[in-house]
Order: sequence, then C-alpha cells, then structure tokens
Amino acid sequence: MNIPRSSFPRVIIAGGGFAGISLAKKLSKQDIQVVLLDRHNYHTFQPLLYQVSTGGLEPDSIAYPIRKILSKYSNFFFRLTTLESVDTENNKVICDIGEIDYDYLVIATGSDTNFFGNEEIQKNSMSMKTIPESLNLRSLILENFEEALLADSMDDRDALMNFVIVGAGPTGVELAGALAEIKKGILPKDYPDLDTRRAQINLIQSSDRVLNAMSNEASEKAEEFLEDLGVNIWKNTRVTRYDGDLVTTNTDLSMRTATLIWAAGVKGATVKGIDGTDLVTKGNRIIVNEFSQVKGLINVFAIGDIASMESEDFPLGHPMMAQPAIQQGKHLGDNLIRLTEDLPMEPFHYRDKGAMATIGRNKAVVDLPRTKYQGVFAWFVWMFVHLYFLIGYRNRIVVFINWVYNYVRFDREARLIIRPYKKNREIRKASGNPFT
Amino acid sequence: MNIPRSSFPRVIIAGGGFAGISLAKKLSKQDIQVVLLDRHNYHTFQPLLYQVSTGGLEPDSIAYPIRKILSKYSNFFFRLTTLESVDTENNKVICDIGEIDYDYLVIATGSDTNFFGNEEIQKNSMSMKTIPESLNLRSLILENFEEALLADSMDDRDALMNFVIVGAGPTGVELAGALAEIKKGILPKDYPDLDTRRAQINLIQSSDRVLNAMSNEASEKAEEFLEDLGVNIWKNTRVTRYDGDLVTTNTDLSMRTATLIWAAGVKGATVKGIDGTDLVTKGNRIIVNEFSQVKGLINVFAIGDIASMESEDFPLGHPMMAQPAIQQGKHLGDNLIRLTEDLPMEPFHYRDKGAMATIGRNKAVVDLPRTKYQGVFAWFVWMFVHLYFLIGYRNRIVVFINWVYNYVRFDREARLIIRPYKKNREIRKASGNPFT
Repeated sequence: MNIPRSSFPRVIIAGGGFAGISLAKKLSKQDIQVVLLDRHNYHTFQPLLYQVSTGGLEPDSIAYPIRKILSKYSNFFFRLTTLESVDTENNKVICDIGEIDYDYLVIATGSDTNFFGNEEIQKNSMSMKTIPESLNLRSLILENFEEALLADSMDDRDALMNFVIVGAGPTGVELAGALAEIKKGILPKDYPDLDTRRAQINLIQSSDRVLNAMSNEASEKAEEFLEDLGVNIWKNTRVTRYDGDLVTTNTDLSMRTATLIWAAGVKGATVKGIDGTDLVTKGNRIIVNEFSQVKGLINVFAIGDIASMESEDFPLGHPMMAQPAIQQGKHLGDNLIRLTEDLPMEPFHYRDKGAMATIGRNKAVVDLPRTKYQGVFAWFVWMFVHLYFLIGYRNRIVVFINWVYNYVRFDREARLIIRPYKKNREIRKASGNPFT
Repeated sequence: MNIPRSSFPRVIIAGGGFAGISLAKKLSKQDIQVVLLDRHNYHTFQPLLYQVSTGGLEPDSIAYPIRKILSKYSNFFFRLTTLESVDTENNKVICDIGEIDYDYLVIATGSDTNFFGNEEIQKNSMSMKTIPESLNLRSLILENFEEALLADSMDDRDALMNFVIVGAGPTGVELAGALAEIKKGILPKDYPDLDTRRAQINLIQSSDRVLNAMSNEASEKAEEFLEDLGVNIWKNTRVTRYDGDLVTTNTDLSMRTATLIWAAGVKGATVKGIDGTDLVTKGNRIIVNEFSQVKGLINVFAIGDIASMESEDFPLGHPMMAQPAIQQGKHLGDNLIRLTEDLPMEPFHYRDKGAMATIGRNKAVVDLPRTKYQGVFAWFVWMFVHLYFLIGYRNRIVVFINWVYNYVRFDREARLIIRPYKKNREIRKASGNPFT
C-alpha cells in the first residue's frame, strides 16, 4: 500500500465515521503513525441524511473531506479502499488495494441496514445509511410524482404517491415528518395538475410506540406531532413482504406503494477475520471489553456502532449512535497514547448525553439525563446541537442558511433529480453490479 | 401526456435552459397555456459547472427546480421527459412519455459537446455540459490522485496526475485555472505522501490564442494568468487521438494522461423532425429568421444555442452563450403575445453585453462593448454578474458564502467523491447503457 514504516508504532483505523475520526484527532501530534482507511473520501454526518433525501440540504454540506481533517496533522496516511479481511495472526489487514500490517488495529466500520435476512425486502426497498443512498431516495421520491402525473389509473397514481416507512426510530420519524411537510407545503405548488392531497405517508412500527429508545413523554409527543402532520402511524405491526408494489404485514394491513423505506434496524458492519460467533453478537457487533479490546486480542480494538461493550447499564452494549462512538474514539485515543507510554489503559465509562429527534418545524423531542422537553425549544436545541457536531465551518454556515431559508420560505429548494434513480436501477439490474 | 386543452393557445417549450426559462417567464399571466418539457427537473446554470467539477461549489447551488420557477404562474405545465421527435405536419411532439400537440412550438434544446465525429475521443474523454457530467469529472479528478498513491511506476503516477484540457474557450480556461489552483493550494496538504508538484495541467488550443472569441487584450492577459499559475498552453495544436491513455496531436506533441477533458466545441442539440440539411447549419444549429421562426414554418421557433439567426453582424448566428439565449427568449415571448393579439411580430436585435472569463483568484478578463479590463476588478465584476444571473436567492447566498470561504481559506471543501466515477464506468460498460 506504499506506506513507509516509521520508527513510531502504526495504528490502523478502519472507518472514518464519528468513532474513527474522533480517535484520529486524539492521535494527532503523537509519536504514532496513523493510517485511516475508508471506502469514501469523506466523513458523513449521518444524522442529517434524511434532509438530503427530502431536498432540504445539499449532500456536500453534510460531508467533509477526510484528507482535510487529517491534513493538519503529521504522521497521518489515508487510503480510499474497502477493507476485505483482517489477519490477526500476522497483524495485517487485507484491502482491495493491497495488504498493510499494523501494531494496533481499530475497527470502526460502523453499521449497515439490517433486513433481518429478508432478501425480497432488501432488493425492493430503499435504505438511507450513506449519501448515495440518500440521493437515490431523493430522486425516487421526486420521480414518483413525475410518474404519477402520467399514471392511467387512480390506483397506480396512489401507489406512486404512497410512501411507506418501516421503523419509527429517529430516522423513520424524521423522514416521515419531512415528507409530511413536503406534502403540505411544496407538492400543491409544484404539482397543480395532480391531486397531491391523496399522497400518503405511512409509518410502520413493530413495537407499541414510536422512538421506543426514548422516554414515554418523547414517544407520545412525537406521535402527536406526526399525527398533526397527517402521518398514518401503524404500531405493533411488522412488515413481512414487499415485492416492489405490495406491502404485506403480520396484521391485516396491506397496501400498494412504489416506495418502501426500510429504517427498521441496523447491524454491525463486521469484518472477515473477526466474525466468529464467539466474537460477535446476534446484532453482528464485535464484543469488546471495557478497553474496547476485541476478545482474546490485545492489539485489536473496536469502537462505535460496530462495538458491543456489554456492561451493567448496557447489557446489550451502548446504543448505536453518534455519542458512544465519539466518546469511545476519544477514550481509546487516550488509552493508545498511554500504551505507547507503557501506562495501563483505563476502562471506558459512557456519559449519557441523552437523545433527540425532530419531527418538523418547531416540533422536536429532547431527552436529557436530568430533563425532558418537547416542542419549539426542543427544536432549537436539536438544531443547535446538530450544527455544533457538524464538521467544518463552511458546512455549518451553509446548513444554517438552508435551515433559515427553508424555515422562512416553507421551502426545500434542493428537490433536484441529479441522477435519475429509476434509470440507474435499470443500468444496475442490466449489469448485475451494485450501485454506490 | 394528460395535459387538458384550455381555450387558450398552447405553447410548447422544449428545454428549460436560459432561453426556455426566460421565454416561460415572459408568458406568465398571459392567456396562453405553456407546456415546458425538459429531461431534467431543474435548470442548470452552466457557466459555473466547472466549479462543481473542481470542488468549489455544490451541484445543488447552481441548479434550480423548474417546477418552482413555474409554480408562481397559472396555465403552466411541466413534464420531465426526453423529446424524441417533432411532427410539424400534425403540430405535435413525440416524447418518451407520449405525444402532445401544440399551437406554437419553441425549440430551446441548447447544445451538446461536439467531438467532430471522433468516436474514440468521445468514448474516452470527459465533457462538462451537465451536472452529472461535472460530478463525474470531479470524482475522476479525485480518484486519480488516490490511485496515483498506489501506482508502481513514476510514469503511471505522472499519467494519473496529468490533466489535459482540449479547447481554450471560457470553459477550458476556467477549468485549467481552477485545476492549477488546486494543485498549488490543496494537493500538497491533502497528499503529503505524494509528490504533487509533478501534477500537470495542459491546455491545448487549435487556434493561435486562448479565448479567441474575446479581444486580444483578454487573450494575452488570460494567457499570462494561466502561465503564472503553471498551466502549460499548447497553441496551434489539434488533438487527433486519445485511446484512454495516450493523447496524440497533429504536431509532435503527445503525452500520457488518465484524464482528457474535451471543451473544444459544441453543436446544436437538434431534434428529429427538424434536421433537414436545408434547416440546419454545419454546426447542427437550426436556421431561423429574425423572428426566431424555423424556415418554412410559421408556428415553430428556435431560440438559444440551438438557433442560428444569421445576420450582417453575425453571419454564423449569435454566439452560443447565455446572453443571446436570454434575449431571444424574452423577445420571442413578446412576439408570441403579439401574435395572440393579432399584432405583427418584431425582428430580434441582439444587444451585445460583452464576454468574460475567470482564470483564478483576482484573475479575470472582461470585454464590454465600450471598455475592457483584466485582473482584480474584472474578477469582482465576473463574480457579481454570475451571482446576479444565478436563479434563486438561496443559491446566490450559498454560492456567495462558498466563494468567500474559498477565497479566505484558499480552499474548496466540496472535494468529495460522492459517486465513484470509475466504478460507475465499469457498471456502464458492463450494461452498455448510457449514464445520466
């Protein structure tokens, strides 16, 4: 991989998400050679992907070039590559661009969408874990309305204007809210020759409440907000089949839709070489100890979504979201520095900073360790926190401007079909190749 | 196409570029039914495409949803479609989504890249006429440097870091300048482990000066600016072959490059049905009279790049750029209104507002009818004019912020490979499908 060995120990970080980046930053200006690997040349701010999908933000403003983050530091190397497997016996990783050996390996490969083995749904549904996926969804949503104008039967038209979101976690709830606002504020103006009142947003949740990782107050208020916006909520319902047209559930609910968005679960993006059943949880997460060490390996670590650090407070590991990833990254950074100084590592303790979700303008829910609130203030807190954690001043300014503009104008001007999804899907099918 | 006939005459506008949009705006609030057809759901501000390719701007900020432009008006219909042919006998157009008849047809389909029949170059080179094309180019440029890191031989590495731009019109000059600034300001920071000083930007021009549609002063100054930035300029040189690796010219100049950008010419994007040799020029432009009427047809018009209105001052028709398109659109709008009021049409007269091009920070050249200037002031004029003609307040603000940021920070943060071009090219090859 053409990376020269220095006298410093080499740390390979696999993945430039929240965990990998916060670790990398910690290791700057240390006597450590850091090699960061990622399949994208940018860091993605995943919490705002749903706004890219719904035309509220440019993809470029929630992504940040990884090389720019690292360029400030010395002893940093980045390679744009896909990690194929890990050889812990010989301390090396195998990538599509070659092999490279390490002194310390940190797996921060994050999570993938979890279809729980349902290949039919995986094949026919949309997911939203990456920027290309969000842009595909944006294109599909807009293409559906263009197509609805041409539909011969009312039934086909309704199917094209029916959006089914599976999973009422933050992603599903935020997406449902955004779509409902588009239906209310934009569709009637954009499609005067289409009865967009017939557009439907259906949110299907297997458990008995939305946002079930949050407080009851948050769930109830979020549900109220969603209903105010006209979202149809189906609780205690599990989607069993989707053939690209008809959605079937375990209840008598079943409907036609051209767009099924799967936000029902995530699983760890495990790596070949560290995937033995003894090393990995049911959710595909790598089991680590309080030092983020992988079972039985002293120089291999896992942090972020991929890592399951089981503790009394978190018997199933920490929640798969930004905060644990950031905290684990920083903490492991300190520990690695301690290791190079022959000091003992310190165990990780998670500081729960709460959770939040936004449903629409002036509508958000926030759970903090000591307090909870919902509504306008929560919405401002949500915006402030997201701007704060966004990487890059330019991104913050551009996102802020877009938010102000969208708020004042009740608008989302990035409703652009830059790359037609349906056409590309044909290309993809024809070639049998995956699309990135 | 499900568009109801009203008591008003129907005008079909084929193309939502500068010409089509300025015509559409003129026809708002008239007793005229306007049907706008375009293959994209957005208007593209082509003069800034090169900044998208070079990571200076988000694509979303130079595009604007066509439906939003039209939503203010009544009697407007938009269809996302590709125009297949025109049947002037029966006054109807045939699209991939069906047929539609018209009372008046306005062809504003713009221009395509002109490879002058060289299929090898067309197959292996990049062009930059649409947003997807610009994004492909952006990805390719960045992918080349990532690949250069892995190259085994110096020779391969140099080929990956060598950029050849063919055609020194505004597009070629602006692109060359931007790439030179990236080489100077960004590559050394982003690729510390790559000798980016070896990166080359070659600008090849068949005539004896760059910007040969502009004044000699502009040409000379632009050339000076480009040389200051380290661009290699090859004049009186015509590229004859490019097999994807080796560029061959009609002189003894020949070099290896992974990226040949073809900005050497444009041709009218003619439409089947109006393509007889008597109707179309050598440059594939539709010959029109002083009322923008297509030869022998009273209710079919052509405006913008696609139209060649030959006059004493412009024996070969007006230059293929924004100004003639905008002016012809507005003028035809007035004429169509006059027609509906049974008034005679008025002949078009072009008001030459001059031309301009930017080479880099503080480096631009401006030719105005009465005066010419180059340098810092010209550069501010260039920016002001482009912000002014950009559609949409949000776009103007976001572009302005990006420019200020890039200027102050010597940076371009949109250097993101959102969709890997090389991988998609494989998919495309495998499927034989064109990529949009």
